[in-house]
Amino acid sequence: MARRRSLISVTDLSRDDIERVLALGDRFAEVMDRDLKKVPTLRGRTVINLFVEASTRTATSFELAGKRLSADVVNVKGSGSSMDKGETLKDTVITLSSYLPDVIVIRHASAGACRLAQRHSDAAIVNAGDGKGEHPTQTLLDLYTIRREVGPLDGLHIAFVGDVAHSRVARSGAVGFALMGAKVSFIGPPTLIPRDAGRAFGVDVSHDVRDIADADIVYVLRMQLERMGPGGFVPSLREYAATFGINHARLREGQRVMHAGPVNRGVEISGELADDPLALIERQAANGMVVRMAVLYDLLAAPAGAVELGQALGAVA
Amino acid sequence: MARRRSLISVTDLSRDDIERVLALGDRFAEVMDRDLKKVPTLRGRTVINLFVEASTRTATSFELAGKRLSADVVNVKGSGSSMDKGETLKDTVITLSSYLPDVIVIRHASAGACRLAQRHSDAAIVNAGDGKGEHPTQTLLDLYTIRREVGPLDGLHIAFVGDVAHSRVARSGAVGFALMGAKVSFIGPPTLIPRDAGRAFGVDVSHDVRDIADADIVYVLRMQLERMGPGGFVPSLREYAATFGINHARLREGQRVMHAGPVNRGVEISGELADDPLALIERQAANGMVVRMAVLYDLLAAPAGAVELGQALGAVA
Amino acid sequence: MARRRSLISVTDLSRDDIERVLALGDRFAEVMDRDLKKVPTLRGRTVINLFVEASTRTATSFELAGKRLSADVVNVKGSGSSMDKGETLKDTVITLSSYLPDVIVIRHASAGACRLAQRHSDAAIVNAGDGKGEHPTQTLLDLYTIRREVGPLDGLHIAFVGDVAHSRVARSGAVGFALMGAKVSFIGPPTLIPRDAGRAFGVDVSHDVRDIADADIVYVLRMQLERMGPGGFVPSLREYAATFGINHARLREGQRVMHAGPVNRGVEISGELADDPLALIERQAANGMVVRMAVLYDLLAAPAGAVELGQALGAVA
Repeated sequence: MARRRSLISVTDLSRDDIERVLALGDRFAEVMDRDLKKVPTLRGRTVINLFVEASTRTATSFELAGKRLSADVVNVKGSGSSMDKGETLKDTVITLSSYLPDVIVIRHASAGACRLAQRHSDAAIVNAGDGKGEHPTQTLLDLYTIRREVGPLDGLHIAFVGDVAHSRVARSGAVGFALMGAKVSFIGPPTLIPRDAGRAFGVDVSHDVRDIADADIVYVLRMQLERMGPGGFVPSLREYAATFGINHARLREGQRVMHAGPVNRGVEISGELADDPLALIERQAANGMVVRMAVLYDLLAAPAGAVELGQALGAVA
Repeated sequence: MARRRSLISVTDLSRDDIERVLALGDRFAEVMDRDLKKVPTLRGRTVINLFVEASTRTATSFELAGKRLSADVVNVKGSGSSMDKGETLKDTVITLSSYLPDVIVIRHASAGACRLAQRHSDAAIVNAGDGKGEHPTQTLLDLYTIRREVGPLDGLHIAFVGDVAHSRVARSGAVGFALMGAKVSFIGPPTLIPRDAGRAFGVDVSHDVRDIADADIVYVLRMQLERMGPGGFVPSLREYAATFGINHARLREGQRVMHAGPVNRGVEISGELADDPLALIERQAANGMVVRMAVLYDLLAAPAGAVELGQALGAVA
Repeated sequence: MARRRSLISVTDLSRDDIERVLALGDRFAEVMDRDLKKVPTLRGRTVINLFVEASTRTATSFELAGKRLSADVVNVKGSGSSMDKGETLKDTVITLSSYLPDVIVIRHASAGACRLAQRHSDAAIVNAGDGKGEHPTQTLLDLYTIRREVGPLDGLHIAFVGDVAHSRVARSGAVGFALMGAKVSFIGPPTLIPRDAGRAFGVDVSHDVRDIADADIVYVLRMQLERMGPGGFVPSLREYAATFGINHARLREGQRVMHAGPVNRGVEISGELADDPLALIERQAANGMVVRMAVLYDLLAAPAGAVELGQALGAVA
């Protein structure tokens, strides 16, 4: 089997790649409007979901994306797997690849885990979040959501607010949003924005939450409490909420709010705002599954040409 | 998508509802007699099993029920999911519902979890046991089992014995059995039967195990050791077994025994009795899958009229 | 349903049985060469994977084997199941069997678990590793791998090296390899080879690693660190690696190396050797899935005659 194309980093994508996936997303969104939300497109294909870090939305949305395309999906979790016996990621990937899956979706605590995996597999590797590294399907679904709910990216200003330092969502988003023509900025306390982040990503940095006023979209970042340890990146969650937590009072009219979830209500975002339709959180989740269907289809249909898309979207028999 | 009907509590069911599900159960029992035990009825439908509490029989029987109806089933466990990151049940349900599943089956440690979920989802919510709340599919499978193995409910006397206080099986059963015409009583030590339980459920209460003599069916309740904590509801398990444990010596001829499992052999029931065919434990398990097929079919086929039942039960292609 | 044939121990197998499964393996290997690696053979059949011990390769390869045969596969793990509530294996098997699966694949920490299960189930029981007991599908995939990569077993000499005492791989392999005409020996420190092992298995025993020179295949055994406890079977892992660890320097030309994985790199085998193609580790993994497809097919197709093999291997619709 020839080595398949992978999706590891937003930096590997061209504008054309992104446009193609977003257009596929529109086609699969139509499938979600049907009574039976399943198509035979990937019948006979195998997707392995290797999730070494906890996840609900990403793991479940990939599993559902695969199953609604009629692929077989096998979940391998870090806990309960041989990785508990000390097996290295490399050996796990070699073993799983020997079963000849079409795709291995990987969530892992270490940045770079997917690149490592790619060196040892002919399957398409899809990065579903690697530590503080990247999260390219999140960026694709964010782009898809912005375009459908707000408008073209060109000229929009998107401000990431909060814990940029631990956020693969911001890291991948800053690259992808800029590529599609948006202006990006990082806003948060100095302890949560790496000193060279502005230059590295070519974005404006501010430590004053009032600067969200310039943004069309306020992208609230999850406080990654589970990654911070006791080190004290912030004096207290209460103080963080008071100085950088986003709520209705801090927004101006016309601004939309995004969050990749899971939400810490009352910390980085108020519960009232999380529940308000001007926050696109639920749309992001819904679009996540659709965009992941598009990604799986895109990786498996090309270049071998597989099923023609029109036929591929016929109802499941 | 219009909001689907749910199954949250036995109190929501009419006699007609129950009769309809039990009749469907008979149809699916016939499918289990076939060599290939699978029908195409729910092809293209999606069932999410959200199990935040440990379970073998309920989780597995729902998964198998869904798969034998040709639905896609996705399991989400509390452990290994975003709920470990502190996400609320509400947010988990909103996220999962955004993927547009047809059904979300929920097992949760808190009574009322399913009602909460229902407020945030258009999917059919099926309560698979919520804390000390309810367990309606258990009651349906118990009714189904009694009718097939013992006879019509009308006029039967069913005594729940043991830990009524922690038992959603007893709570749902008392309501459902009475609705179908049976007499119900609670028998156990005063510490394990809430003081107002007799009045609240309209049943006789006894603290003398010899009163099981009046019952046609002795329904032995699991000692919920994992829920009791160190509080000392009973002096010791050995003493509990000696005073309220059910064994052959305590039964009179003609009585049948039920238990919702998993069994604590030698505590609430003797191992010999658990293995005796006059205990219906294995039939209850077997019927559990069949009745859950009936529940899933009932919720998804109506009111939209879906597939006609005759055709729905044709062999899988 | 009549009780199905099971696969519990290599000692139950005849040469004919093994030849039949290996020949089936060749047919399924051809399926793996196709673009779509799935056949409709076991459509409508149900496989329950009951894994009470951690496993990646075995659990995943059985799940994939089942799915690529179009069976429905349901995973039940020890953790998160009722077994956490203290349910016995016997009761778990009775419950799962009441759902009428065609196969229950069992991995369990206790030798003899599968025999126990077989007494309480009409399903085909497949032993996927029971404590220090047996691992018959490992032996079948090893036989398959040796025949394809090295040649006929007859007259070959295979030396198991290392922790024979805790190894079900060695236990099953010694029986199976000898049955097919190979000479087997055990090599390792006295603490890791039971005193009567030589006589019990009819094999030569050596405590000198240089005796691997006589072998055609050096089968390196995993140090079962998780089974050893603090008891001190070896002075230290470093010393073990120095005295019995297998690396390029210890091999003579023409020898091949096997390992059932997961590998402890730098302990029982050097990383360089594990990565060298003269080690058959990846082939063993790949063949594992193929041979497990053969085993599932063999148990479910006979004796009822089910689908004729030629038709069974047609492409999935």
